[in-house]
Amino acid sequence: MSVPVEKWAEQVRAGDVRAISRAITAIENHQAEAEELLRRLFAETGRAYLTGVTGTPGTGKSTLVDRLAAYYRKRQKAVGVIAVDPTSPYTGGAILGDRIRMQSHASDQGMFIRSMATRGFMGGLARATAEVALLLDAAGKHEVLIETVGVGQDETDIVRLADCVLVVLVPGMGDDIQNMKAGLMEIADIFVLNKADREGAGRLEQQLKAMLSLVMPRDGWHPPVVRTVASESQGIESLAETIGEFRKHFEASGQRERKHVEHWKRRLLELIESRLVERVLGGADGEARLAEMAKEVAERRKDPFTAVNEMLAKSGVVV
Amino acid sequence: MSVPVEKWAEQVRAGDVRAISRAITAIENHQAEAEELLRRLFAETGRAYLTGVTGTPGTGKSTLVDRLAAYYRKRQKAVGVIAVDPTSPYTGGAILGDRIRMQSHASDQGMFIRSMATRGFMGGLARATAEVALLLDAAGKHEVLIETVGVGQDETDIVRLADCVLVVLVPGMGDDIQNMKAGLMEIADIFVLNKADREGAGRLEQQLKAMLSLVMPRDGWHPPVVRTVASESQGIESLAETIGEFRKHFEASGQRERKHVEHWKRRLLELIESRLVERVLGGADGEARLAEMAKEVAERRKDPFTAVNEMLAKSGVVV
Repeated sequence: MSVPVEKWAEQVRAGDVRAISRAITAIENHQAEAEELLRRLFAETGRAYLTGVTGTPGTGKSTLVDRLAAYYRKRQKAVGVIAVDPTSPYTGGAILGDRIRMQSHASDQGMFIRSMATRGFMGGLARATAEVALLLDAAGKHEVLIETVGVGQDETDIVRLADCVLVVLVPGMGDDIQNMKAGLMEIADIFVLNKADREGAGRLEQQLKAMLSLVMPRDGWHPPVVRTVASESQGIESLAETIGEFRKHFEASGQRERKHVEHWKRRLLELIESRLVERVLGGADGEARLAEMAKEVAERRKDPFTAVNEMLAKSGVVV
Repeated sequence: MSVPVEKWAEQVRAGDVRAISRAITAIENHQAEAEELLRRLFAETGRAYLTGVTGTPGTGKSTLVDRLAAYYRKRQKAVGVIAVDPTSPYTGGAILGDRIRMQSHASDQGMFIRSMATRGFMGGLARATAEVALLLDAAGKHEVLIETVGVGQDETDIVRLADCVLVVLVPGMGDDIQNMKAGLMEIADIFVLNKADREGAGRLEQQLKAMLSLVMPRDGWHPPVVRTVASESQGIESLAETIGEFRKHFEASGQRERKHVEHWKRRLLELIESRLVERVLGGADGEARLAEMAKEVAERRKDPFTAVNEMLAKSGVVV
């Protein structure tokens, strides 16, 4: 690294786009400097408001995020967008999407957009997303929008980062409320009924409200349903206001602190895991030793529990 | 435990349903006896053929698995079914489903069905599913069917256990091939076009084949498309034969050994992680210490990296 970490941190604090981009790459590659950088920036984080946006493909999440970002920019808020697609093994589409999205904000220094589309980041996509969110927070972004596809464990881990979670649905996509994954109901703070000019919007809203009426409110909050037509910029202001209401409610109820402590419990646990595994499997021959053990186990020459105990004993980690 | 582990293992080997059920509960609860039991049974595993079945809700996976199981039973194969739904926070539905499914096989000792529907098993659902598959393998099941919903990371981890992965699609569910998650294409060894008597089956098959023609075969295998109407038991024999062909191809290509070594690399890594974390956070006050640290970090009194280093240093694990 040609730039010393303290200077790099200074550039990030000033919102320098190239410094931020370089930091994200370092985070993705799990480089030691990324940790050093985040360590220095950490005290200045915790100010940004994180909004997670999730929904199946075709619901218009990207357009919605784009319009929400534009809304915040008009109100002089600095905005960061992290678009995560853990199901995509290719970055091509995401990069193309970035370019298209970037164009409309190209000259805007208060807007930062980044896609994270590949699996297999060292240490996991959720960790990398969380660290990028911290970075954008330290870079002075007021609003950080985290967009992710679907509701697998990965995505759930990602949206859990957010202070407020939007679940986007559209009429007539065949995902009847009955078939809707239970996971979605659990994580939604606000439902967005996008493409609300389509046939079936009224029916979907009715179904949704009927289902929501059966669910206990969490900390006094009943997830509302907001209608939008993101492609026409309709309903965006109303959505932003609803996010604002949730934020107020959330902060008043003391839920924010509790959620943040829960969040950091998970994060610390993940950090502990990766530290320890690096200790046992680090070094040039770590991967080879693991492969050798796996072969012995696959051939039933050794059981997995004995294999692991032997690896731990040899690694010098006292267990 | 009233029964000594060696006797318990003996009962599992003999296919005793109550012994198997008790072992699954021990696995789910991450009890020490489960490990002791699996250690004893391990040498006798590796014989069962594992078929994973995945697809979005409403594709008729359960019926398909049920009919496939019945097909194997008619041919005197002992069958185990593990139905996993990581998105369901409730076990109610799954248990009800089990009962309904059990009824048709109630008096059949060669058939074992178990649902695993809750998140938050100690050590993860993928780990628990993998250990239950080992157990059923040791219990002499020839065919183990693992049924799971969707394609999140959790589900991907689960189906990766399988020797053969079926992806189930149905016509007219709005999931156009274009919207189909890339993850599904990657993991499918065989596509099942279920409810093939519905309108749109031909179009879906065409789309699927067009898409498959663009994909490189893996180890010389082109994922075929098999049409079924599971509710009418149509196409089940043809599907079972295709699974048999894949098995032959798979074993001839040497892919099986390679896949098993990869599988055990992941499993050993997970075991290492959970062992080490238990060491650092085990004991009566482990959870409390983690919560305390998380609070300090959430309040920005300490950065997460320093917090983790301190916890590791105190734990006696040499890092």
